Amino acid sequence: MVITLSNEHDPMETNMIEVYAFATPNSVKVPIALAELGIPYDLKAVNVRKGEQKEAAFLSLNPNAKVPVLVDGSFVLTESAAILVYLAEKTGRLLPSDGEGRARVFEQLFFHASALSPAFGNAGFFKRSSPEPQPIAEARFTSEAERILDLLDAKLVDQAFMVGDTFTIADIAHFGWLWRRQFPGLTLDDCPNLSRWYETVAERPAVQRAIARVEALVEAPAAAG
Amino acid sequence: MVITLSNEHDPMETNMIEVYAFATPNSVKVPIALAELGIPYDLKAVNVRKGEQKEAAFLSLNPNAKVPVLVDGSFVLTESAAILVYLAEKTGRLLPSDGEGRARVFEQLFFHASALSPAFGNAGFFKRSSPEPQPIAEARFTSEAERILDLLDAKLVDQAFMVGDTFTIADIAHFGWLWRRQFPGLTLDDCPNLSRWYETVAERPAVQRAIARVEALVEAPAAAG
Repeated sequence: MVITLSNEHDPMETNMIEVYAFATPNSVKVPIALAELGIPYDLKAVNVRKGEQKEAAFLSLNPNAKVPVLVDGSFVLTESAAILVYLAEKTGRLLPSDGEGRARVFEQLFFHASALSPAFGNAGFFKRSSPEPQPIAEARFTSEAERILDLLDAKLVDQAFMVGDTFTIADIAHFGWLWRRQFPGLTLDDCPNLSRWYETVAERPAVQRAIARVEALVEAPAAAG
Repeated sequence: MVITLSNEHDPMETNMIEVYAFATPNSVKVPIALAELGIPYDLKAVNVRKGEQKEAAFLSLNPNAKVPVLVDGSFVLTESAAILVYLAEKTGRLLPSDGEGRARVFEQLFFHASALSPAFGNAGFFKRSSPEPQPIAEARFTSEAERILDLLDAKLVDQAFMVGDTFTIADIAHFGWLWRRQFPGLTLDDCPNLSRWYETVAERPAVQRAIARVEALVEAPAAAG
């Protein structure tokens, strides 16, 4: 993994957005947004299975040692949802510019960040990765994740997407972790509305293109620069 | 706890913002923002120690059964950070309108929601509330919370607030949980920069007024309406 910020580039070079990512629930959100917006991007592998997110070169981009990171010229931004907001506001798309819909998108983004994401991540950790069983912890996060699935399923009874009938960055955020629901061992079997929403989002061509690109990172050799 | 939305009010009545809250890390953020912005508000107690957040009347406001909830006329909004963004955008204050500073505020809001808040909350749960010891879980969340304190301390080496030298909603978000750091058993003893920031924020008159109001909820009788 070699990291070069744009001020070190040949000045004649096109200033293409770079995304440091891997095939992870949070990583995939950024390529999906960029693909939906039609913005070309250079995808750089950070192999989190090998711990590359803790190497000094990556920590210079994100001291928090997490993917994804967006590099837009000399501007470096972390936190997948903050990147979604940045891209939406940069383009004026995927986020209502005002009114209730705008507040509802933020409500879902923060519900995802504070509730769904930690529940899914911790349920998966205690189910698969804990050095010893922690049954109370495993049950706590699994039941919380199931409660969250039920809340989202109820929300989607009478609307197509997470905020009304328009696809927004709130859908992209939730999709990231639902795409990786096997990690915490969850299914959508008891969530017909959420299941229908998932299929609808998964069928979008931009979503499929983005997933293909992040999945290719897993098998690819380390990025050469 | 009696909940009345404004469309049930006397139409001559002043449409004052209502905040459903308790003396919790996430609740306090909203009164702090309102006090900083000089917006009067009616504070309604939801006694989470008695489980009032799971009563039907409250679930009609927030099916997720969490405080705080903001009621602005007929508009009901959940998620403390989404409320902070809503109030900042409504007033044009506490959040830069564009540029890098704006993106950095969102970066901190999502870092708070996805990292600090679940680490602090879960560290406290496994230290104090778990029916049986879960040592791996307790160590996992405690070490993560300490890692996050170190990251924030490093950020504040050469800047006064979480985003540059201006007080923003990012400071309000982080302050909420740092104010309740005793719950996860954390101190700022090894974080001189974060400690200095905490004292600076805690000394703000609006912050003190907001804390006094939420702390008064704990001793007050149940809201009569």
